[in-house]
Amino acid sequence: MQYIYSFKEGDRNMKETLGGKGANLAEMTKIGIPVPQGFTITTDVCDLYLKQNGYPAGYNETFEKYIKELEDEANKCFGDCENPLLVSVRSGAAVSMPGMMDTVLNLGLNDKTVEGLIKKTGNKRFCYDAYRRFVQMFGDVVLGVSHDLFEEALNHAKIKKGVTNDTDLDAEDLKNLVAEFKKIIKENTGEDFPEDSKKQLNMAVEAVFNSWNNQRANTYRRINKITGLKGTAVNIQTMVFGNMGESSGTGVAFTRNPSDGINEFYGEYLINAQGEDVVAGIRTPNKIDELEKCMPEIYKQLTGIRKTLEDHYCDMQDIEFTIEQGKLYMLQTRNGKRTATAALKIAVDMVEEGRITKEQAIKRLNPEQLDQLLHPMLDPKAEKKVIAKGLPASPGAAVGKVVFTADEAYEWAKERDEKVILVRKETSPEDIHGMHAAQGILTSTGGMTSHAAVVARGMGKPCVAGCGAMHVDYPNKKFSIGDVEVKEGETITLDGALGQVILGEVPTIEPELTSDFQKIMSWAKEMKKMGVRTNCDTPQDAKVARDFGAEGIGLCRTEHMFFDETRIKNMREMILAKDTEGRKKALEKLLPYQKEDFKGIFRAMDGLGVTIRLLDPPLHEFLPQKDEHIEELALEMDFPVSQLKAKISSLHEMNPMLGHRGCRLGITYPEIYEMQVKAIIEAAIEVSAEGIVPVPEIEIPLVSSVNEFTYLKDRLKKVVDAYEGKINFPYKFGTMVETPRCALIADEIAKYAEFMSFGTNDLTQMTFGFSRDDIGKFLSDYIDSGILEVDPFESIDQNGVGKLMQWTVEKGRQANPEIEIAICGEQGGESNSVKFCHKIGLNYVSCSPYRVPIAILAAAQANLE
Amino acid sequence: MQYIYSFKEGDRNMKETLGGKGANLAEMTKIGIPVPQGFTITTDVCDLYLKQNGYPAGYNETFEKYIKELEDEANKCFGDCENPLLVSVRSGAAVSMPGMMDTVLNLGLNDKTVEGLIKKTGNKRFCYDAYRRFVQMFGDVVLGVSHDLFEEALNHAKIKKGVTNDTDLDAEDLKNLVAEFKKIIKENTGEDFPEDSKKQLNMAVEAVFNSWNNQRANTYRRINKITGLKGTAVNIQTMVFGNMGESSGTGVAFTRNPSDGINEFYGEYLINAQGEDVVAGIRTPNKIDELEKCMPEIYKQLTGIRKTLEDHYCDMQDIEFTIEQGKLYMLQTRNGKRTATAALKIAVDMVEEGRITKEQAIKRLNPEQLDQLLHPMLDPKAEKKVIAKGLPASPGAAVGKVVFTADEAYEWAKERDEKVILVRKETSPEDIHGMHAAQGILTSTGGMTSHAAVVARGMGKPCVAGCGAMHVDYPNKKFSIGDVEVKEGETITLDGALGQVILGEVPTIEPELTSDFQKIMSWAKEMKKMGVRTNCDTPQDAKVARDFGAEGIGLCRTEHMFFDETRIKNMREMILAKDTEGRKKALEKLLPYQKEDFKGIFRAMDGLGVTIRLLDPPLHEFLPQKDEHIEELALEMDFPVSQLKAKISSLHEMNPMLGHRGCRLGITYPEIYEMQVKAIIEAAIEVSAEGIVPVPEIEIPLVSSVNEFTYLKDRLKKVVDAYEGKINFPYKFGTMVETPRCALIADEIAKYAEFMSFGTNDLTQMTFGFSRDDIGKFLSDYIDSGILEVDPFESIDQNGVGKLMQWTVEKGRQANPEIEIAICGEQGGESNSVKFCHKIGLNYVSCSPYRVPIAILAAAQANLE
Repeated sequence: MQYIYSFKEGDRNMKETLGGKGANLAEMTKIGIPVPQGFTITTDVCDLYLKQNGYPAGYNETFEKYIKELEDEANKCFGDCENPLLVSVRSGAAVSMPGMMDTVLNLGLNDKTVEGLIKKTGNKRFCYDAYRRFVQMFGDVVLGVSHDLFEEALNHAKIKKGVTNDTDLDAEDLKNLVAEFKKIIKENTGEDFPEDSKKQLNMAVEAVFNSWNNQRANTYRRINKITGLKGTAVNIQTMVFGNMGESSGTGVAFTRNPSDGINEFYGEYLINAQGEDVVAGIRTPNKIDELEKCMPEIYKQLTGIRKTLEDHYCDMQDIEFTIEQGKLYMLQTRNGKRTATAALKIAVDMVEEGRITKEQAIKRLNPEQLDQLLHPMLDPKAEKKVIAKGLPASPGAAVGKVVFTADEAYEWAKERDEKVILVRKETSPEDIHGMHAAQGILTSTGGMTSHAAVVARGMGKPCVAGCGAMHVDYPNKKFSIGDVEVKEGETITLDGALGQVILGEVPTIEPELTSDFQKIMSWAKEMKKMGVRTNCDTPQDAKVARDFGAEGIGLCRTEHMFFDETRIKNMREMILAKDTEGRKKALEKLLPYQKEDFKGIFRAMDGLGVTIRLLDPPLHEFLPQKDEHIEELALEMDFPVSQLKAKISSLHEMNPMLGHRGCRLGITYPEIYEMQVKAIIEAAIEVSAEGIVPVPEIEIPLVSSVNEFTYLKDRLKKVVDAYEGKINFPYKFGTMVETPRCALIADEIAKYAEFMSFGTNDLTQMTFGFSRDDIGKFLSDYIDSGILEVDPFESIDQNGVGKLMQWTVEKGRQANPEIEIAICGEQGGESNSVKFCHKIGLNYVSCSPYRVPIAILAAAQANLE
Repeated sequence: MQYIYSFKEGDRNMKETLGGKGANLAEMTKIGIPVPQGFTITTDVCDLYLKQNGYPAGYNETFEKYIKELEDEANKCFGDCENPLLVSVRSGAAVSMPGMMDTVLNLGLNDKTVEGLIKKTGNKRFCYDAYRRFVQMFGDVVLGVSHDLFEEALNHAKIKKGVTNDTDLDAEDLKNLVAEFKKIIKENTGEDFPEDSKKQLNMAVEAVFNSWNNQRANTYRRINKITGLKGTAVNIQTMVFGNMGESSGTGVAFTRNPSDGINEFYGEYLINAQGEDVVAGIRTPNKIDELEKCMPEIYKQLTGIRKTLEDHYCDMQDIEFTIEQGKLYMLQTRNGKRTATAALKIAVDMVEEGRITKEQAIKRLNPEQLDQLLHPMLDPKAEKKVIAKGLPASPGAAVGKVVFTADEAYEWAKERDEKVILVRKETSPEDIHGMHAAQGILTSTGGMTSHAAVVARGMGKPCVAGCGAMHVDYPNKKFSIGDVEVKEGETITLDGALGQVILGEVPTIEPELTSDFQKIMSWAKEMKKMGVRTNCDTPQDAKVARDFGAEGIGLCRTEHMFFDETRIKNMREMILAKDTEGRKKALEKLLPYQKEDFKGIFRAMDGLGVTIRLLDPPLHEFLPQKDEHIEELALEMDFPVSQLKAKISSLHEMNPMLGHRGCRLGITYPEIYEMQVKAIIEAAIEVSAEGIVPVPEIEIPLVSSVNEFTYLKDRLKKVVDAYEGKINFPYKFGTMVETPRCALIADEIAKYAEFMSFGTNDLTQMTFGFSRDDIGKFLSDYIDSGILEVDPFESIDQNGVGKLMQWTVEKGRQANPEIEIAICGEQGGESNSVKFCHKIGLNYVSCSPYRVPIAILAAAQANLE
C-alpha cells in the first residue's frame, strides 16, 4: 500500500485514495496547469490512523522521503532559518465535506523562520502578516481555540491604532499580534505554541485526521447521506502568497454562473490577500471580470485555464487561484456546486455544446435538488415591504420567524415545529444543523461564494447574503435596517433569487417551469422504465401532477373529502346512527358529493389509472374531542351530550394506529364501502358519457389476511355488477400492502387482487414498531448516534421493510404474473427509494405532485445504472 | 367413487368417508357384535350435495339399490302398509360434532304404515307412541319447528288427563297427539307433514347434509378448531325398539368411568324407552349395574361386549344399546369423552394392562385438557354454604355470577368481562356458545350422560347436573332451593367433583397432582426433544413452575417488580428527575430491591437458565393519570402539581405500543439498564457464595435494528466486566424478537446475540397491525365470520407470524449455529403452537407456570409425530 502520492503520481480517478482535492491537484499537474507542488497522504492512512490511534509501520519514513523531495524541488528547507519551506495543509475526502477541518496556511513559520523569510522577501510586513495568519489558523483549527478571541485581539489592535482595515496595521503591529495570539493560545490550551516546524506539520496532519469524526463532519455526512468512505486525505502543498503586495492576489471562480447556469466566467478576487479573505466574507471582493483591467495577462491565462478545465472535465468547475508577484497558480478545481436552475441549464447546454450525451446529463443531476424548482415562489403581484436588498445567493422563497443562532433555529424547528429564518453576520461550519433546520438564511457580510451562500445552494435553501445595510445585534436578539427593527420571533420573507428581505409573510404562487426543465424531463421519461404516478385527492392537484408528468394517480385518499362543512355533518350523522339503516341514510347524502369528487378526478386523469383508497382512518377522527366542541356538536345535531360523549369514549382506542380502521371498518360497516364503490362506478359511467376514459382502481386498505380481501371484494363486486351493461371502461380491485402480514401472504392475496400498492408509511411503522406520532422523542437521538442511518420514513429502510417488499414482489408475481405492484408511501418520491423500487421491479411509484419530476429523474437514473 | 356402503362393507379405518359412527357400526358388524343392519351415505356425497345443491349423477340408483337390499334382509318393505320397514337416520362426521342434526327415529311411519305395525306387533299404544315420537323429532330436527311446542302439547295432554308420566298416556291419547303435532307442523311451516315414507327419508337425509353448515355446527368446529373435513355421513339403520314393553329398554354406557377413569362399567338405562329419553335428561335413568338384577342374561352379554370392544379398540368406549323384546342390539360405539383425570388414569392403566405402549398413551392425550387439573380447587378448609347437591357431572371449581340463558352468558363474559355460571333446567346444542363462555354449568334435570354433562366434560368445565332440588324460574331470572333464592347476577360456586352448589364465592387452593399425572409427565419428558421453561417474575411462581417440570425461566419481566409501594416511589423519583444524576440517585435506591428479587429467583432456579428482560413498558405506566391521583402524588413527592402534569403530558403517546419503550428507553436512559444489570450480576455473585448455580441470561426488549442491540450490549457488558474475577457462573446477552424487523434482520442480530426469544404477543400485534387493547370491537366478528380461523393471540398465526419465526430460525442459525432460539409469548403454552415451535426447531418454549405440563405433553407429541 502506497501511503503518499506526489501530485505528479496521481490522477483524477484516484478520488477514493487521494480525496477529491488531491486527485484534482494531481490531474491539473498532469494536464500542464500551473499548480504549486506538493503531495497527498492517502485516505487509507487516515483510516489506519483512526483505527489504531497511530500511523502504520513505515509511514514515517515515507513521509520524510516526500518532504525531502518537496524541499529539493522547491530548493527550500522545512524549518530552515535562511530559506524556509512553507506549506498549506488541507483536508480532502472523496466527497467535499464542509464540516471537516479545512485549511492551515503558511505552516512552517516560527520566530526564527520568519526572520529568514524577511531576509529572502525583504518584506517584513508581509512576513509578519503571514505569521499572524498562521498562528491564528493553527490556534483555531488545530488547537481548537475560538477564532473570536483572535478576531477580538485583531480588532483591539486596530482600535488602539485608530484604523479600520487590516492593511493599515504595520509590521510591528503584526509582530505584537503574533505574541498576543501565542499568549491567547497558552491561556486557552495550557500549552505553548509549537515553534518546531515538523511538530507543527505533524499536529496539523493529525488534526485533519481527527476532524473526520468531529460532530460537524458527522452531521454533514448524515444530512447528505454520505456513507462508506474510509476517511480524509491530507494535502501538503508549497505555499504561494496572494498577499505579497499589489502584484499578488487571490480568487475563487466558477467556470459558469452557479446560480442560473449561464455560460459566463463568474467569480471574485482580492488583491493582496490570502484565499480565506475571499471565502470567509470578511472583505467584500471584486468581480472576476474586473481582473481583466487590473491584470490583463493573468486574466487571459485564467480564461484559458477555464476553457481547458471545462474541456477536460466536461463539467462546470469551481476553482481557486493565487497570483504571487505576477505569477498565476491554480490551487484547486472541482465540480462546482450549483442551484437546480443552474444544474439543469448547464446539463442542457453541455448536451447542446456536444460536450456530454443526454444520458450523461441525466445521470449527473441530483433528483432531490429539483425540489428547489418545484416549490411555490413569491407572488409577484403581492404587496411586499422590501426592507433591504442583499446578494441573491441562493434562489427560492422562504418565510419564517427570525432566530439568531443555529441552535435556536434547530430547536424552534424541531421542537416547536416552527418555520424559521436564520439571521447571522456570517455563517460557519458550526451552523450547519441550524441552516438545515431553517427555511432560509440571511447574512450581513460575505459574498456569493461565502460559506452561507455555498452551503445554502447545496441544500437548496433560499439565501440572501452580504446584506450590508443590516445591523445584527446578537445580545438583544434583533436586527435593524435603517429605522426598521426586527426582533426574534417576528416573521420575514426572503426572495433568494432577487436578494430581497421583506417584512412579514408574502403569499406564494406555483413555479413556472423552464424549457431546460421540460427538456430534461422529456429525456428522463424516455430513459425510464418504471411508471410514476401521483398521490392526490383533488382535481386541482391531479392537474398539477399531470403537468409535472404524472402517469396516473397511485393513491387518492377519500377521507379528506369528508371534512368539508356539509359533509362532515353527514359523516357524523353516519357515525352516530343507531343501526345499519341509519348509517345508510346518512351515506345516501354523502354519495352525490363523493361522485362529484371522483368525476373531477377522472376528468383530470382522462385515460390514466386512478387508484382510489376506500375509507381508512378510525371513525373517531371525524368527531370532536374537546368538551366545548362536543357540546356544540350535540346542540347542532340535536343529540344528547351524554350519549355523544359515550359514543366518543366507546370509539377511543389505546393504539388507534393498530385499531378499528381500514378494511376492518369496511367489514364492520360494509355500507360505507358500498356507498364509495357506488360513487366511483356512477362517476365513471357519467364521465364516460362525456367522452372521458376513466380507469378506476378500487383499493382496500390495511389488509392483513386474504379473507378480509376476498370478503370485501366479493361484496363490492356485487355493487359493481348492479351496473352491468353500463360499464364500458376497465376497472380493478386491489389492496394496499401496509401490514407486515399482508406482505408475508402476498402469494395468497395476489390470487385475488389485480394490484397491490405498498403503503410504506404504515408498513414502516409496523415493521419497526415505531409510531410516527411518538418517535420524536428518540428518532433524532437514533440518527445522531448512528443507530439508524436514515429516517426510515424519509427513505425506504431497504434492509428491513425492503425485504418485505422484495418478498411481496417475488411471491406475488409467482402467484399472479399479471399483478401490478406499486408504492404510494411518502418515500415513493425520494430518489434512493425510487431507485430501490426500480431494482425490485415495481410497476410504478406514486408521490406528491411536487415530487413527480424527482421520481421521474430518479427512475431514469435507476434504469441507466 | 362408491356413494354408499352397507355396514358389512366398511370398517373402522374409513372414518373420513363413513364418519365415526358409520365406521364403527361397520366395525362392530365385522367383529360379530349384534348391530341392527343398515348402510351409510358417504361424506363425499355430502360434500358434492352442498357444493352442487343436489345429488351427484347415479346416486339415486345406488340409494334405491341399498334400500332394496335392506328391505330384503329385514324382510320388510319401506312404506308398506302391511309390513313396514322403519329406520333411524343419523348424522356422523369423522369427528363427533354435537352441533349438527343428530337423529330421527322411527322414520317410515305414517297414518297407513302405523296400522300395519299395529297389526304386526299387536301393541297399539307402542305404535302410536313410536309414531308421535317420530312426528315430533321430524318436526323438530328436519322441519325446524321448536320442540317446545311439541312438549307443550304433550304436557297439555297429560294435564288434561290428570297424569304426570308419559307412560300414563294410552294409545288413543297418543293418536290424538299425532294429529295435534301434525297441526303444529302445518301451522308453523305452512306445509303438511309428509305422509310418503320415501319423501320422509329424502327430507331427513337432506336435513342432515344441510345441518353441516348450520350455525351451531360452525361454532362447534370453530371452538374445537376442527378444519379440513368434507362433511357428514348419514347412517340409515333398521329401527329396533326399546319401548316395546317391559322386556325392552335402552341405555348408554362407558366401558370405564369417564369422570375419574376407574375401570368399572359405568352407565345408565331406562326400561321401555327410546334412546333419546336417556340422553335428553327428561327422565332420570337407572344405573347400569341395576340391569344385572333386572335382566341378568342381557347384562352378562353386555359386559361381554364391553370387554370385546375394549380389547378391540384399546380405548375406553362410549356405547349405546337397545333391548327389543329381550334381544340386545348395539347402536353405537366410539371413543368416550372423559375428564382430564380420567384420561390420565385410563392411559396409565392401559399401559399397565399392556393394552397400549407409553408412546400411544402420550399421543392420545389432549394437552389442552390438562388445564383442568392444573387450576386451583376449592379450599377444603374454607367455610362453604352448600345449598344443594346434584350429580358430579364434570369436576373442578367454578365461581361466577348466575345467568339463565346462553346468550346472556356469552354477553356478560365477552362484553362485560364477567365470570358467569350458566344455570338451566337442561342444556341443548343451541347453548354451546354460552357454555363455552361460562365458568361452569348447573342444571336441574338430566343425568351424568345428559347434554350438559357430556359437553362440560369435553370442555373441561365444572358441571353440576340433575340438581333436582333446584327450581329454575326463567321469567323472573332466579332460581330457588328450598328457602334460598338466587337472582341473576348473584355469585355462586360449583364444586363439580362433589356436585355441590355453594352460595357466594369460596377461596381456592393449588391442585394436588396425582401419581397418574406424574407418570405421564415423566414419560412425556423422556419423549420430548424441545425444552420447556416458564414465564414468571417471583420466586414463588418459579417454584410452582419447577414442580410442574419447568426447565428454567424463559421470561422474567422486571417491571412488575417496581409496583410495590416503596419501589414505585423510587421509580417515580427516577422518572421525575431533572438529569442523569438525579435518575442515578433514584436508581441507586431501587438496586437493593432488584437484587433481592433476582436472588430469590436464582435460588428457585438453581442450575437452570433464567432469562431476565430489562425494563420494557413506557414510563407513563408508572405515573398516575387521574387528576386526584396526580395531586396526591405531587403532595407526596413535594413536586409542583403543574410540573407533574406537564411531565405526564410530555410522556403521553398516541400509540404507546409503538412508542418510547423497550430498548428505546434503554438507549435514552442507559442508567436504568445499567442498574438492572448491576442488580443481576451482584445477585448472581451473592447466591453463588451460597452454593447456588445462577445462570443469568440478560434480555434486551423491542429491538428492531442491530445497532440498538450492539450499542446496549457493549454498554452493559462494561457493567458486567467491572466484576471481573468474581464471576464464576455462565451468563449471556440476548434479545427479544418482537418487531417484524428484528425477525427480518435475524442474521445480523445473531452475530452478536447469544439467544433470541420470540415475544409473539407484540410480534403478532405488529405483524397484523392489531392492537390487543383495541381489537375487542372486531376480533370476534372476524372469527365468527371465518375471516380468521383462530385468535392469533391464542395460537400462533403460522401462516404470517410463523413465517417470520421460520425466517429468524433459518437466518439466525446460518449466522450463528450456536444461538439459542425460543418463544416466550403466551402462545408458548398452547399445544398447536408448541408443536409448531418443535417443527421449526426452537430450543425451548416458555409459558405460564400452570401451562408448563401442557407444553411438555405437546412437545412430546410433536416429537413422536
